[in-house]
This record gives sequence, structure tokens and C-alpha cells, in this order.
Amino acid sequence: MATVPAPENPESDPRVKAVFDDIRATRGSDFINNAWLYLAFDPQLLEEMWRDVKAVMATPSLIEPKIKEMIYAAVSIANACDYCTHSHLAAARAKGMTMAEQAELIRIVSTAGRTNHILNAIRPPVDKAFLA
Amino acid sequence: MATVPAPENPESDPRVKAVFDDIRATRGSDFINNAWLYLAFDPQLLEEMWRDVKAVMATPSLIEPKIKEMIYAAVSIANACDYCTHSHLAAARAKGMTMAEQAELIRIVSTAGRTNHILNAIRPPVDKAFLA
Amino acid sequence: MATVPAPENPESDPRVKAVFDDIRATRGSDFINNAWLYLAFDPQLLEEMWRDVKAVMATPSLIEPKIKEMIYAAVSIANACDYCTHSHLAAARAKGMTMAEQAELIRIVSTAGRTNHILNAIRPPVDKAFLA
Amino acid sequence: MATVPAPENPESDPRVKAVFDDIRATRGSDFINNAWLYLAFDPQLLEEMWRDVKAVMATPSLIEPKIKEMIYAAVSIANACDYCTHSHLAAARAKGMTMAEQAELIRIVSTAGRTNHILNAIRPPVDKAFLA
Amino acid sequence: MATVPAPENPESDPRVKAVFDDIRATRGSDFINNAWLYLAFDPQLLEEMWRDVKAVMATPSLIEPKIKEMIYAAVSIANACDYCTHSHLAAARAKGMTMAEQAELIRIVSTAGRTNHILNAIRPPVDKAFLA
Amino acid sequence: MATVPAPENPESDPRVKAVFDDIRATRGSDFINNAWLYLAFDPQLLEEMWRDVKAVMATPSLIEPKIKEMIYAAVSIANACDYCTHSHLAAARAKGMTMAEQAELIRIVSTAGRTNHILNAIRPPVDKAFLA
Repeated sequence: MATVPAPENPESDPRVKAVFDDIRATRGSDFINNAWLYLAFDPQLLEEMWRDVKAVMATPSLIEPKIKEMIYAAVSIANACDYCTHSHLAAARAKGMTMAEQAELIRIVSTAGRTNHILNAIRPPVDKAFLA
Repeated sequence: MATVPAPENPESDPRVKAVFDDIRATRGSDFINNAWLYLAFDPQLLEEMWRDVKAVMATPSLIEPKIKEMIYAAVSIANACDYCTHSHLAAARAKGMTMAEQAELIRIVSTAGRTNHILNAIRPPVDKAFLA
Repeated sequence: MATVPAPENPESDPRVKAVFDDIRATRGSDFINNAWLYLAFDPQLLEEMWRDVKAVMATPSLIEPKIKEMIYAAVSIANACDYCTHSHLAAARAKGMTMAEQAELIRIVSTAGRTNHILNAIRPPVDKAFLA
Repeated sequence: MATVPAPENPESDPRVKAVFDDIRATRGSDFINNAWLYLAFDPQLLEEMWRDVKAVMATPSLIEPKIKEMIYAAVSIANACDYCTHSHLAAARAKGMTMAEQAELIRIVSTAGRTNHILNAIRPPVDKAFLA
Repeated sequence: MATVPAPENPESDPRVKAVFDDIRATRGSDFINNAWLYLAFDPQLLEEMWRDVKAVMATPSLIEPKIKEMIYAAVSIANACDYCTHSHLAAARAKGMTMAEQAELIRIVSTAGRTNHILNAIRPPVDKAFLA
Repeated sequence: MATVPAPENPESDPRVKAVFDDIRATRGSDFINNAWLYLAFDPQLLEEMWRDVKAVMATPSLIEPKIKEMIYAAVSIANACDYCTHSHLAAARAKGMTMAEQAELIRIVSTAGRTNHILNAIRPPVDKAFLA
């Protein structure tokens, strides 16, 4: 249940159409997932979010695309974002993550969840050796 | 400022000594960082946390060690865990993460932080296509 | 799916009826939304929560009502509270927030989400100039 | 204690100097706070964060600047971001927020924090009436 | 809507069957709830999670079982984990928590939620007297 | 480093003095910890927070005081609230929590942290059997 209505004919707005066209071209797919569809209620927000996600996730960089989606999903799990967890785990699988790798990702994320809670409880001083 | 006192002579407890020895052997280093030192106030908690972290982080697996530390750091940043962020960024650097890769990690984590907040606000329905 | 059952005839309890009557009078509307209906399983919890929300949100103060609901919704988005996000965005719209203002709210909340994650990663020292 | 070193002579990099110059011009002040100084370890990250913050916070829009900083601070409090809470409360005060308004902001944020926890515990169904 | 498919015949895997048998024996019930069923997609993750939960929650210790489930539910509420909140409130009720005690639990959790937000906003120095 | 200044002579304000006197009488101690001292910058906020905390934590109820402080500390750890974690672990110890019980509390909190992250990743449907 969304907090904004899905636009009925979003691509009648040329700013929305331009973003959707770029999403399709960048991904090589006609599928526009609901995040972008609902964001079209505000073309500026849509443009900014796509610009950010494209720059970080769809542009060649030091970290390979599958790993980038796994890191993104890890943060989404920690932030309890339902849609984001679904969409970025799906994106990681689409880029080659196997179910065994997904299981390992969950092991890392949940072990971090455990030790984050332990160390937020213990609160030891940060070691000098860790300084950059 | 820790919520428990640092044990004065922790390795006088043989359970603590066994864990510390295994940490040193696993890492090939004599350095015991404060997380383990302060956890030694309770040998069982120390044993369990080291067992978990060793099994997930120090055992060969599908994901390479540097990437595992980067995912761990990403979750720690999202969970606002001060000690964990310092220690796992330092561990990732020790395993070869460059400052350029750290910067890219932060770009991914913070872009996820942005879109997590957008989608927690918009709450679009999860697309059928994302189901595993 | 709630973790408590909705009371079948909540206003048979005079404490519940008194709170519901005050909600209706304060809002000038007969509508009792589900948060209050389900909270009626425990009259004390209901009384305390309504007392708090009324004192902060339904009492004239320095910040205008629409802005108060927008701040409330912003916190609810950050805390990943589903019901709260829906109800306080709806309340803000009922008090005059336009869709353009809702879009701007989401831009602020999500930019904060991004920079919160960046600065939780970087952890610069707090500037002396920021002290109150 | 930062996770990255503060650059020693950050403005020797022309990309950093350009951002710092724009920060000074936009704010009408020579003061560069630590968030930007430490971010200068990676000019791209610095450029992106300043572009986002400037677009949302330093550009005339529907919501007045003081209120925007208060919403930003509210999210930072909810996300437990230390630096962000300090810097955006300070920015709100610099834009005219009084201590009485800061107290009211904290009342709203913390009442949201309370009811967010109550409703995450109760989990009532979202009312149809709240749909956009 | 899960991010992994529910295994069709999970107990055909002997590692899964061993865990499910131990869950049944430990609880004295044939019911296997969805958390364990879906986790069976990865037997190692299933084994580790059951080992942890059994060691902490189903083993006699200093804190009585009902209270342990209430603490677990409190953390789950704070972490906005939907499934966990449902399952641990149900477990606490199964161990004797009354609806009046559940209401008191929610009062404590939500008062903590409020003061956590207040003190994350105020950020007073930690008193020397609180040190362990 | 606080975001508000500590009032220099807070009890010159009769509303502050009344709250501080009630804190001293309720606790049977002259010690006013920093949370209350800094909150005195706004008497209304101070009155409301003390009213809430007193009603929930310092009033005889179904759950014993030591356990209430342990639940409060558990939520504070999950919310990454530094001051709150210190103060409520200290309060629990003052009410009789041993270091062995504190260690067990941390085991429960961190196991919940782990499984919360696992189930936020897996997202299994909530079992019908868990409904209240």
C-alpha cells in the first residue's frame, strides 16, 4: 500500500518519459519497476534518484556490479527497508549472485547485526591502530 | 567509555587465553583489539562471538575476504555502530581495500541510505518480478 | 496483521470511551483510526499515548500544525514505521501539505538519510563552532 | 576520531577548491566545517554530497530554510548520527530557530519515537482512509 | 512475500531434517514456523541460527524464559523487524506473558524509544558514576 | 559534547527544582545525572520526560524493577543510544543485575540483532498461529 498514488499515464510527462527511457536503455530491458513508477508522482525526485542510482550502480567502477548490489542489499536489510531488500537482492541475482552467495551474504549481514549489538552494548574504546 | 571494565589480566582465565590464542593464530598477529579484550569479562560471550566471526569472516568461502569486510562495514555504518565501523573499515584496508574503494563503498552505502528513506516514504508494492 | 486483537466493543470500557470522545472532539471528526482502536486493548497505554500525542500535536504551539505532522512523518520514515508513515503523511495532507510539499519533504528526509550514512562512515570530529 | 585522515592541503586539488569556494559563496562565510574537510579525501564524493545538500537545502523552495534544517535534524536524531545532529541543529539555530523551538522539535521527534515503537509493537492494519 | 522460495520438501535434506527434529524435540511440538521453513533454503544458515537461538533462548539460564522472550521482542520492535516481533511476542505469550504484561512491555519499550530520541538530540556527557 | 548548554543554576527555576526534588525523593539519592541536568534547558520537556520515566520505571508494576531496566537497556542498545545504554545498564546494576546477568542480556540482545537481520533479509510470511 503506497503513500502516493501510482500515476495513471506517467510518460505523458516528458521529464518522466526521459527518465524511463534512460532506465530502459541503461538496463537493456523494458521493465520499469514500481519504485520508479510511483516516484513519477514528482518528476524532480524521480530525476534525482535515478541520477544517483545510475551514477553509483550502473556506471563502471572499481567494484563489480554484483558486489555493488550485494552491498546495497546489505544496507537495505540493516535499514529494514522492505522494497529495497527485495529489489536489490533480485538485482544481485540478475547479475549472477547464486543462492549460495545470497546465503553467505545473509550470514555476513546477520553476524554484523549480532556484533553491532554486542559492541553497542559493550562500547569499548576504538583502538589507535584502526585510525586511517 | 566502555560499559564494562577491561579485565586486568584476562589470559589468566584459560577460556579467554584459548580464544586469544586462536585469534592470534588465525590472524597471524599478536594484536588483540579492544572488542575482544573487553568481551573477556564474560568468557562464554567471547567464545560465541569469536566462533561466529571466525566462521563467517576468517574461513575461506564464496566471497573474498576484502569484500566480506566491506559488506560488514556497510552494515555497521547503517546500524550507527561506532566501534564496528572503525574496526571493519580498518580490516578491509588491511585486506587490500584502497581509499578509492572505500570512497566507492561510502557512495553505495549512502545512496542506499537515500533510497531506503525514499522508499520507506513512498512504500510502493513489491513487484512480482522480484520474487525469488 | 496486528499483534493484538482489535477489541470488539471497545467503548464499553468507560476509560476507552473517554479517550475516543476526546479524540473526536479534538479533531472535530467521528473517525477513530486503527492505531487508537487497537491500542484500546489496554486503556492505560491508550490514555498515555493520546495524552502525549494531543499535548504535542493538537495543542497550539510555536510550530504550525502542518509542519509538526511533516516532522513527525520524517521521523517515522527514518524509523521504518509503516503505520506511522501512512498516518502522519495523511495527517499532514489533511492540514494542507500539497503533493509538491510532500515531494520536498521526501527530498529532505532522503538527503539526510544519505549524508547520515556518509558521516556515520567518515566520522569527522564535531566542530567547536556547532556547540550551543 | 575519523575513519579517514583529514587532507593536509585539500584546496591544492582544484575539484576540492571549487567545491569549497561554492560552499563559501553559497553560505556567505569562510567557515568550512569538518564534514566537508574530511570528505575532501575523495573529490567525487565531496562534489556529489555538496551538490545534493545544496540542491535540497540551499536552494529556495516551498519549505522555508529554518524548517528544512529542523526536518533534517529530526531525521539525523532518529538515525543516531552524532555529527549530523550537531551540525543541523546548529544550522537551524543559525537560521533563527530559538531554544524554545528546539525544545518543541525534540518533543515532536521523541513523541514520534515513542509512538513509532508502540505501533511497531501493535502493528494495526493501515486504515483505508489514509491512502493517498 | 519472502525473498527466498519456501523449500518444497525440506526434510529430504538430512541436515534440515536434523534441525527440524531438534526444534520439535526442544519445544515439545510438531509445529515448525515459517522462519525455520524458509531458512531451510540454506542448511548451514539454518543450523547456525537454530544453534544460536537454542543456546540463548531454550537453555536454562539466569533469566527466566518468559523474560528472555520479552527482551527479544523488545529488541525486535526497536529494530522494526515484522516477523520477529510477531514470533517473539507469541513465544512470550506461550510462556505465560499476559496481555497486561504485554501492555507494560510496550510501555517500557516506547518510553525507551522516546527518551532514546530525546538523548540522541540532547547528547549530554555520560556521567562518571555510570562507569562499570 | 551536548547540543544544548548545561543550565548554570537550574534549580533557580521552580519548575526545574520541583522535578529535581521529585527525582531525589523517588530515588532516595541526591545524585542528579546529566540527562536531567541538561534537559533543564526546557522545563516542560524535563517535566514530561520525568513524568513518563517515573510512571513507567519507578512505579510498582507487574514487571520487577531490575527486569524493567534490562528491557530499557536492550532497546537503547538496539537504538544505538550511547547515553541511554550507559545509564540503564548502570540502573539495572544498581537494582541487582550481576555481570553474569548483563552478559546474558547482551547474548539475548545480540542474538535478536542477528535473527532480526536474517529475517529482514528472508522476510517469511508471518504464521497464522502467531496472531493474538
